Amino acid sequence: MSTLRNDYFLKALQRQSTPYTPVWIMRQAGRYLPEYRATRQKAGDFLNLCKNPNLATEVTLQPLDRYPLLDASILFSDILTIPDAMGLGLYFELGEGPKFERPLREEADIQKLNIPDVGKDLKYVTDAVSQIKQALQGRVPLIGFSGSPWTLATYMVEGQGGTDFLTIKKMAYSRPDLLHHILKTMTEAVTQYLHAQIEAGVDTIMIFDSWGGALSHQGYLEFSLPYMKVILSNLKMLTQKKIPSIIFTKGGGLWLEDQLTAGSDALGLDWQTDISAAKKRVGNHVVLQGNLDPAILLSKPEAIEKEVKRILDGFGHGSGHIFNLGHGITEHTPPEHVDVMLRKVRDYSQQFHTT
Amino acid sequence: MSTLRNDYFLKALQRQSTPYTPVWIMRQAGRYLPEYRATRQKAGDFLNLCKNPNLATEVTLQPLDRYPLLDASILFSDILTIPDAMGLGLYFELGEGPKFERPLREEADIQKLNIPDVGKDLKYVTDAVSQIKQALQGRVPLIGFSGSPWTLATYMVEGQGGTDFLTIKKMAYSRPDLLHHILKTMTEAVTQYLHAQIEAGVDTIMIFDSWGGALSHQGYLEFSLPYMKVILSNLKMLTQKKIPSIIFTKGGGLWLEDQLTAGSDALGLDWQTDISAAKKRVGNHVVLQGNLDPAILLSKPEAIEKEVKRILDGFGHGSGHIFNLGHGITEHTPPEHVDVMLRKVRDYSQQFHTT
Repeated sequence: MSTLRNDYFLKALQRQSTPYTPVWIMRQAGRYLPEYRATRQKAGDFLNLCKNPNLATEVTLQPLDRYPLLDASILFSDILTIPDAMGLGLYFELGEGPKFERPLREEADIQKLNIPDVGKDLKYVTDAVSQIKQALQGRVPLIGFSGSPWTLATYMVEGQGGTDFLTIKKMAYSRPDLLHHILKTMTEAVTQYLHAQIEAGVDTIMIFDSWGGALSHQGYLEFSLPYMKVILSNLKMLTQKKIPSIIFTKGGGLWLEDQLTAGSDALGLDWQTDISAAKKRVGNHVVLQGNLDPAILLSKPEAIEKEVKRILDGFGHGSGHIFNLGHGITEHTPPEHVDVMLRKVRDYSQQFHTT
Repeated sequence: MSTLRNDYFLKALQRQSTPYTPVWIMRQAGRYLPEYRATRQKAGDFLNLCKNPNLATEVTLQPLDRYPLLDASILFSDILTIPDAMGLGLYFELGEGPKFERPLREEADIQKLNIPDVGKDLKYVTDAVSQIKQALQGRVPLIGFSGSPWTLATYMVEGQGGTDFLTIKKMAYSRPDLLHHILKTMTEAVTQYLHAQIEAGVDTIMIFDSWGGALSHQGYLEFSLPYMKVILSNLKMLTQKKIPSIIFTKGGGLWLEDQLTAGSDALGLDWQTDISAAKKRVGNHVVLQGNLDPAILLSKPEAIEKEVKRILDGFGHGSGHIFNLGHGITEHTPPEHVDVMLRKVRDYSQQFHTT
């Protein structure tokens, strides 16, 4: 940490005092930025962009160059690198989310599922981490990440994301043994993957449980949360480095108390979860990260400022809040609206950090 | 109520004792039933089916004939009858949700928005209500329904449902005056529509706020909840009949305490909301309706029975629970699995209703 010129994000994760509320943006290197679209065009397609450490480094740094008020960077990569390395045939169709050519549904395929060789099949990711760290020159910390086992499994079984999840839920309730086998395998793979990112130099790790909120409470406690917990506790044994962690179950605002048991340093909040109510519920146990509705950034400066203020007021005084959106920034966001948000966070939050 | 042979659903809505937990199924007249598919084919298309009182009556009664353990029926209709009557050009494409030919986005169109003449343009709905009531011969109560103003407005502005809601949210935060004008107009239309259904004979009304959960907490308190409250209080003034009401904000489990202020007799629960926790939060103020994950019905009898048991155990002793799914039944449901669910509810719930 001594090599970082701005370590407020890491300090906030440890509930140490900072002069203002640090901020970063989920999917901050993304299609709303013209410079990102240019690099992506150069790459040919999205997967090439992810798999080329030079280009991944380039787009990771783009938002930092444009927005000096950002307090963290996040590895540019796809959430589905692991199942891709497992041979499921990841592909992207224009204007649609990721899909798999060979969804994982047959018992025989599930039984022979092998974790990828992270050092070989996912070397492009750790190479990108090393290169980004070097390029950052200590400007801000770098966040590494993975999908949660449940979220990766939904993509793998459904063959795509954001559906009604009927295929994987049918498996969950008809053949829980099969699903748990997938989840255990993914837990091992995610652990190795995040461990490799840590060894390559990331300063924080974040687990995105994008589809955890599609489960019932009971289902979440059986199929998603415990596997994130195992990853975090195994990582603590695997590495001497004290790397803070964040878990984010989108749609999981009802289950914050349960999420405390995962042992992460911070919880992500979607925009449905009122941050003031969330703070009361989790007390001093974890840091909260979030939670502006990304749609607000499509509106107008006064509305953006009002909503930023509302969230900062909602959290109130003291450390333990990292400002962010409640979900990834949308591609339709005018880049200048991001400036409005960042400036308001910086200006308005300082009053909450006086000692 | 004296003319009803089975009034347990209505009794439960008034927290009166019943010998078991009453049950019905959202979208119980639907594509999972072969007899429904046959009638729909006869109708030509879905809108014809909705607009023909004879056929609407036929499909409303189909699940009751197949499942004698159902304790309520619900008017077969579409959620978008009102905007259709307002001239937005409702249509359905094969395998997709409802869409509008002319989404409502221009200020000029919004300003000249007129509520439909319910007695004329929506007469097919009240005709269906009268006919269904007659055909039911007092077997079970009939539920009338409408979409909430926010939910209808999202369809109208987005032009379809289930999107990322960026268009309507941009309007909400850039031009709240325009959105409130739409919402006020829809509130008046929904009030007249539900009033007409009540006069035609429905025994209960339910407001489906299918997209309320896409809002932030603050957004819900500004754009969805207050309009449902206005509808319910206006209906109480418009009619002498004491018709119980249910509101259901899907994805709104975080905001149950706020929902209490709407003044409904019951709240719908999606499957993410733990019913035992929900009961503690709402106390004796309202009845709870829900909350089995519809995906469970795709699994196997033992899993269905286990989940039904878990929900009934979760609510525990006493009146004030109406069993249902947490969302509409999916078309892939094997009809015999519905039998398994209904039988388990009937058998297992009796222990909770002994005096």
